[in-house]
Amino acid sequence: MNTKQRILNAALTLLNEEGETAISAVDIANALEISPGNLYYHFKGKEEIIPALYDDFEEEMQIILQSGHKDMRSIEDQWIFAYIVLEEIWDFRFFYRNLDSILDRYPVLAPKFKRLLNAKRKAIRTNLNNLIRLDYLHIDQVLLNTLVEQNLLCFTYWLNLQEIEKRDIPAQTAIHQSVFQIMTLSVPYMGEAGFNALQGMQALLEKNLAPK
Amino acid sequence: MNTKQRILNAALTLLNEEGETAISAVDIANALEISPGNLYYHFKGKEEIIPALYDDFEEEMQIILQSGHKDMRSIEDQWIFAYIVLEEIWDFRFFYRNLDSILDRYPVLAPKFKRLLNAKRKAIRTNLNNLIRLDYLHIDQVLLNTLVEQNLLCFTYWLNLQEIEKRDIPAQTAIHQSVFQIMTLSVPYMGEAGFNALQGMQALLEKNLAPK
Repeated sequence: MNTKQRILNAALTLLNEEGETAISAVDIANALEISPGNLYYHFKGKEEIIPALYDDFEEEMQIILQSGHKDMRSIEDQWIFAYIVLEEIWDFRFFYRNLDSILDRYPVLAPKFKRLLNAKRKAIRTNLNNLIRLDYLHIDQVLLNTLVEQNLLCFTYWLNLQEIEKRDIPAQTAIHQSVFQIMTLSVPYMGEAGFNALQGMQALLEKNLAPK
Repeated sequence: MNTKQRILNAALTLLNEEGETAISAVDIANALEISPGNLYYHFKGKEEIIPALYDDFEEEMQIILQSGHKDMRSIEDQWIFAYIVLEEIWDFRFFYRNLDSILDRYPVLAPKFKRLLNAKRKAIRTNLNNLIRLDYLHIDQVLLNTLVEQNLLCFTYWLNLQEIEKRDIPAQTAIHQSVFQIMTLSVPYMGEAGFNALQGMQALLEKNLAPK
């Protein structure tokens, strides 16, 4: 691994652990036991490190979102897809924890993050339209729009809300509970099949949270 | 108005406009044209101003939440209540925009904010239980729990998501759209009455967003 990548990896760990406002470029250099000058040779301070990390995040997220356009018929498929999206957000959680403030202070990121929100929105809509086409969901057009937005809100902020209330919640627990929360949004639009679907979701949640 | 209150008012305006990380105690003193020493006589820096503002916010919010326990039967009553809660959040929006980071850096606020989240959760549940008792909502117990959490998520983060996407959205527009989003969460549990309720909500949204 080259120095540039080592800097990004160390930065991501520190930012996730300590928060974006608490970490300076010097802290990152210290963690790697390199001189601030050596770090500066690769990145002109935190102002270049944060956007570089964001680009890594967006690239991975776009790949995940595009891979999800396949038919996802079963509850298990939907669960796994939502899990992968939220796991990626968890890996870059420093960014979501300080979202508005970071977008203010790094203006280059604001249009990129809007683009990513739209990509998420599109993937959610494609998935829900697919379930409608397969006759799993029956939903009015206005409520479909609000359901898409509610899914987007959950994917963006649910992990934050859980962390505020339970600071040391393990990542897997937080993510599986978020997935359950997202999945249940569709249940009332499933008609009579909703009851079984909900039981399937509860069984998956219990299975995934059981001690291994 | 005494100097202490003038400091808090100026601080709130600046923090909402510029963001919490951008504003120092000296900026607040400058805006008021008082010396930093005079400000320091009342508050030992931003570390005391932010918790004082939070206490004002929580006090007002608790009063609002407790006033909402009355019967709210009509869509109009529900709309007004949600509007008042979100307007209060808007008035202290600097706090919500930087929520995780502020709770990290002002540890005295973390238990207070959790207490407020629980008060919001309780008010949401009381309201939904009331609608169930009045036979307006028909909902399974598991889905009621997730519906409460979805409402809480909307009340906490929906304004943020709107602002990220439309930076200069007027407050009233953002708040009414948030209210609509929250209200539609209950529609699929209203049975046949849901169709009329949704039309009522759309009419209220249009009326409230129409140019005066």
